[in-house]
Amino acid sequence: MIIQLEPNIKQDLRDRIITKINGLKYKTTEVATQKGEYIVGIGKKDFDIRDIGHMPGISDVHIVSDDYKLVSKKWKVKPTVIDLGDGVVIEEGGMAIMAGPCSIEGEEQIEKTIQHLLDNNVKIMRGGVYKPRSSPYSFRGLGIDGLKVWYDAARKAGIKIITEVMQVSQIEEMHDYIDIFQVGARNTQNFNLLDELGKVHKPVLIKRGISGTIDELLSSAEYVFSAGNENLMLCERGIRTYEKASRNTMDINAITILKEKSHLPVIADPSHGIGIRDHVEPVALACIMAGADGVIYETHEKPEEAYSDGQQTLNFRESEKLINKMRKVFELREEM
Amino acid sequence: MIIQLEPNIKQDLRDRIITKINGLKYKTTEVATQKGEYIVGIGKKDFDIRDIGHMPGISDVHIVSDDYKLVSKKWKVKPTVIDLGDGVVIEEGGMAIMAGPCSIEGEEQIEKTIQHLLDNNVKIMRGGVYKPRSSPYSFRGLGIDGLKVWYDAARKAGIKIITEVMQVSQIEEMHDYIDIFQVGARNTQNFNLLDELGKVHKPVLIKRGISGTIDELLSSAEYVFSAGNENLMLCERGIRTYEKASRNTMDINAITILKEKSHLPVIADPSHGIGIRDHVEPVALACIMAGADGVIYETHEKPEEAYSDGQQTLNFRESEKLINKMRKVFELREEM
Amino acid sequence: MIIQLEPNIKQDLRDRIITKINGLKYKTTEVATQKGEYIVGIGKKDFDIRDIGHMPGISDVHIVSDDYKLVSKKWKVKPTVIDLGDGVVIEEGGMAIMAGPCSIEGEEQIEKTIQHLLDNNVKIMRGGVYKPRSSPYSFRGLGIDGLKVWYDAARKAGIKIITEVMQVSQIEEMHDYIDIFQVGARNTQNFNLLDELGKVHKPVLIKRGISGTIDELLSSAEYVFSAGNENLMLCERGIRTYEKASRNTMDINAITILKEKSHLPVIADPSHGIGIRDHVEPVALACIMAGADGVIYETHEKPEEAYSDGQQTLNFRESEKLINKMRKVFELREEM
Amino acid sequence: MIIQLEPNIKQDLRDRIITKINGLKYKTTEVATQKGEYIVGIGKKDFDIRDIGHMPGISDVHIVSDDYKLVSKKWKVKPTVIDLGDGVVIEEGGMAIMAGPCSIEGEEQIEKTIQHLLDNNVKIMRGGVYKPRSSPYSFRGLGIDGLKVWYDAARKAGIKIITEVMQVSQIEEMHDYIDIFQVGARNTQNFNLLDELGKVHKPVLIKRGISGTIDELLSSAEYVFSAGNENLMLCERGIRTYEKASRNTMDINAITILKEKSHLPVIADPSHGIGIRDHVEPVALACIMAGADGVIYETHEKPEEAYSDGQQTLNFRESEKLINKMRKVFELREEM
Repeated sequence: MIIQLEPNIKQDLRDRIITKINGLKYKTTEVATQKGEYIVGIGKKDFDIRDIGHMPGISDVHIVSDDYKLVSKKWKVKPTVIDLGDGVVIEEGGMAIMAGPCSIEGEEQIEKTIQHLLDNNVKIMRGGVYKPRSSPYSFRGLGIDGLKVWYDAARKAGIKIITEVMQVSQIEEMHDYIDIFQVGARNTQNFNLLDELGKVHKPVLIKRGISGTIDELLSSAEYVFSAGNENLMLCERGIRTYEKASRNTMDINAITILKEKSHLPVIADPSHGIGIRDHVEPVALACIMAGADGVIYETHEKPEEAYSDGQQTLNFRESEKLINKMRKVFELREEM
Repeated sequence: MIIQLEPNIKQDLRDRIITKINGLKYKTTEVATQKGEYIVGIGKKDFDIRDIGHMPGISDVHIVSDDYKLVSKKWKVKPTVIDLGDGVVIEEGGMAIMAGPCSIEGEEQIEKTIQHLLDNNVKIMRGGVYKPRSSPYSFRGLGIDGLKVWYDAARKAGIKIITEVMQVSQIEEMHDYIDIFQVGARNTQNFNLLDELGKVHKPVLIKRGISGTIDELLSSAEYVFSAGNENLMLCERGIRTYEKASRNTMDINAITILKEKSHLPVIADPSHGIGIRDHVEPVALACIMAGADGVIYETHEKPEEAYSDGQQTLNFRESEKLINKMRKVFELREEM
Repeated sequence: MIIQLEPNIKQDLRDRIITKINGLKYKTTEVATQKGEYIVGIGKKDFDIRDIGHMPGISDVHIVSDDYKLVSKKWKVKPTVIDLGDGVVIEEGGMAIMAGPCSIEGEEQIEKTIQHLLDNNVKIMRGGVYKPRSSPYSFRGLGIDGLKVWYDAARKAGIKIITEVMQVSQIEEMHDYIDIFQVGARNTQNFNLLDELGKVHKPVLIKRGISGTIDELLSSAEYVFSAGNENLMLCERGIRTYEKASRNTMDINAITILKEKSHLPVIADPSHGIGIRDHVEPVALACIMAGADGVIYETHEKPEEAYSDGQQTLNFRESEKLINKMRKVFELREEM
Repeated sequence: MIIQLEPNIKQDLRDRIITKINGLKYKTTEVATQKGEYIVGIGKKDFDIRDIGHMPGISDVHIVSDDYKLVSKKWKVKPTVIDLGDGVVIEEGGMAIMAGPCSIEGEEQIEKTIQHLLDNNVKIMRGGVYKPRSSPYSFRGLGIDGLKVWYDAARKAGIKIITEVMQVSQIEEMHDYIDIFQVGARNTQNFNLLDELGKVHKPVLIKRGISGTIDELLSSAEYVFSAGNENLMLCERGIRTYEKASRNTMDINAITILKEKSHLPVIADPSHGIGIRDHVEPVALACIMAGADGVIYETHEKPEEAYSDGQQTLNFRESEKLINKMRKVFELREEM
């Protein structure tokens, strides 16, 4: 059960509502986000929703039987819009493009990537400064210093930054230099990290776990939302299966299913979804056709020299071609 | 190694070639199909291809290192075209539509489906008369009698038939009443069935195994081709994974990878690929965008009353909408 | 619902029972096996079991809610015993050993393997004469002639034969030369083959599908049983997962779960279950400890020269060591 | 390449060695643990190992081609022994038992569990005070206060504590109240957590990821070891597959493969591995037979009332029976 409260509801009304809900044997969690205040009730008993709906201070009540509540489409009517400022938005029904290298490698690479994005009117740049690597001996990213260099260049160019945050202690240090926090596939169920990201106001993109279910992804988003941050996106990036002809198996089904289950924007990551440069384009276009609200992919001036993920990274010429095609596919999707 | 022989090559030239190849420690298999004659050589030694290429009787030689040879794109330059007669073709780069019920249920259902196809200018009808069912107590299809009724109606309407063949003994009995033999996901590695289908001239569509790899699908096609039948199509129909929010996980990657690896047309089955009626459309459109040469899907006048697979079957209104959209998506793919 | 009929029940009593069951809106299937006669009722309505139980001609009635009925443990009290003759039995609670090469290769190999088995008091020899191979260019087995040679040698030595049958047409030709028909992992859902194996009286061992579920394996056994043959065994041989450090993932859970769900003997195949020679022994011992009623594994005088599966085949010294250890583990299991 | 340094090696010798290794185009990482000092060299060039081995200050040099180095069995001759004090050890070739509830629930539950362990001469108690839960609305554990209560009771009874640490900030707070840090299946690739656990001296048990590969588990252990802590254990707890008859698929293969690849003790978790109370025993016994150096499982006085995981938790009577059987199986394994 989700109870949306009226803005600036008084404390005694709020207490009365909670007492009422608890009296129905529902446990309550109070949630205050950038956009509103909610009470989430967890319980099993059936009751007449009208018993609650009429109470003063309540603007709406919704029954949501899934494990996740606030991220469910069952209560939200207006499409979610995530405003990054300067006219850059990510929204349900839109087609946001986020592109850039796997790893941030240095000033020259940053400048060239920004120029490529500007040339193609792309407003959001991806790149890793903290890299989760399965071996402790691999390159782990340039860290906060690299981020600051990137930030300066991006701000000047009017480009927004999305980058991965790997642990709680990085949130504060990164906060002022990023526009979107990315939670990586190995951290989808790092619940402490999710809790803390609920306490900041910067948007968060959550990648599906390497073998996470659709429901687990939604529950991870519920963590962030219920902790106070509803500027959220979900990202399908391929799942681990027995098939080894591709790096992962892009779950195209997940895109349309997530769109049905949640009001949050759904972003596709075709680079990790297939992991083979020559095939990133058809997979990206397929994802848009399936309903994705955006695409995040890897591009680098010279993929063969990239510090990481070169085999799935587009060069700028391929990237430009992809951007143009994605826009045509999106246009057709809009028309149909 | 694939050696394409000249048409009507004399026996002594052929023998000389085989002796030569065997002398290189390559085992040889002679293949004669509707379209040509080949010698497939299996071995590991490196040699100078020019030693063979100059021999009389040889029109071309190709090195193919994959386990599958004849179905590989490495040797075939011209796109594969499967001609069903009456102007109905399935081909690389095209977009064939095959639609119809999961199970053939009777005359009325056949007539209504045919009318629906005619109304939408669709030329190929799918439907099962032998149904593989996991429980022995389930409906197993109308069998050969049902097929004959279907055949009569379809012929009159100029509609082609694709239906599943489950065992060797059915091939002969079904042969004259079908246009395409379908090998189901449980029979992808029924090698005896594949061998026998290599001996007929009717086209064959091979579905990927329930948890078959891309390479296994190609090797299964190699069985049919090497036994003499190169009128072949591959079909991606979703794979079994841990995710249970959908019936299968549609492997969108497989479509683009199969297109790269093989010259055979690749057909997508979104009905089984996701298994949920409301989501068949976006998945079908995504598959075309990813490069599929055709789509096979389930439609029924009243899905809720279908003998089988109702939950993933479109009604005629939904089917019509899908057909129109698929054509638009295909058109855009052509243009880009 | 399973209704066990009294031996030699008269036709009119039988008809009356069927009429009664159909009247309850249950579809009925009559089953006659080597061991008894049954009526299987499929339906959903609840009813009072006593309405049926008192009818003349009925020896017992059982409600079984699973999709599979006759293979369920819910009705069978006495443990299943499969008698191969000459005192060789496979039974619930026992520990049968079946060993031999992947492929039968010729007389000398047969003789040496038989001697190895005799030396270790093993009574059942495995080996393939029809080999399912993913590539059409691989060795496909010696066929029926190889089987006859093997049969002659085995009979003389008092050794029983288990070998794979790949298609319906082979059943008759192989019937007199084998003691157990093996259905391979690629044929677990070859329903026509299962149907036909229900009509013979030789025992059948059904391997779990490459990515088959436990329930699917039981339903496949139901096919054979309901077609008339209850001399059945189930075989866990590893499943396909994302993990590639082993050939398959041996599903140790399946052994104990199958033992709970079904009265049929459960055999473990550690050779395919892990696919690495050095690890076959610990996996085999683990399977016995988990409750397996038998083990089938691959052994060859010189595994490195075997026509197939050499990398997972034990040499005779390793095989002997394994046999001794298996017997000790079984002894402990019995004691505990 | 792993270079074991002599104890108390002088700085100039160390520098000379590093210079030499770097000169061979190998990147070096210096590692100092509780037990020794190492230089790990990462590179691809072949060289003559004798060029290095003779250098002063080096006690041994090993070539290890795997991604993981220090946890590989290729260099370590003596079995790893983890000493928890008071005569409690976990070691290669041993059979440690760790038992207790999923969640620590309160004083009474702690006391009863401790008594059960004492009665059965079990020295290590498991239990969660920080619980990773997929839903933010579920019980998340008693936290540090619960741990302190548990610690007091355990110390009095001479019982050691293993419990999960979920994030870096908990390490310090938990440090003095635990004997083994457990890294859960959702944190196997939480590389920051692993890094920090490398800096403490308390033993660490790392669970395999929910769909982690064997190699990923070893690489995660390499993180901890290379950061300074070689008191490490690996834990197989079942993997996520398509099979839903059990909670996870216990990968019995992983136990024997991990034993071959690494010198670290391998612990089996049958409770999560199958997830069904009635089947925990056979799976536990199978794991010991396959070579596990220990077992961790869930037990509770009244499983049906447990705050979490009740369906896979043994009651004390079942637990006692299991302990006795495990000891017998271990005894047999030792003898054979």
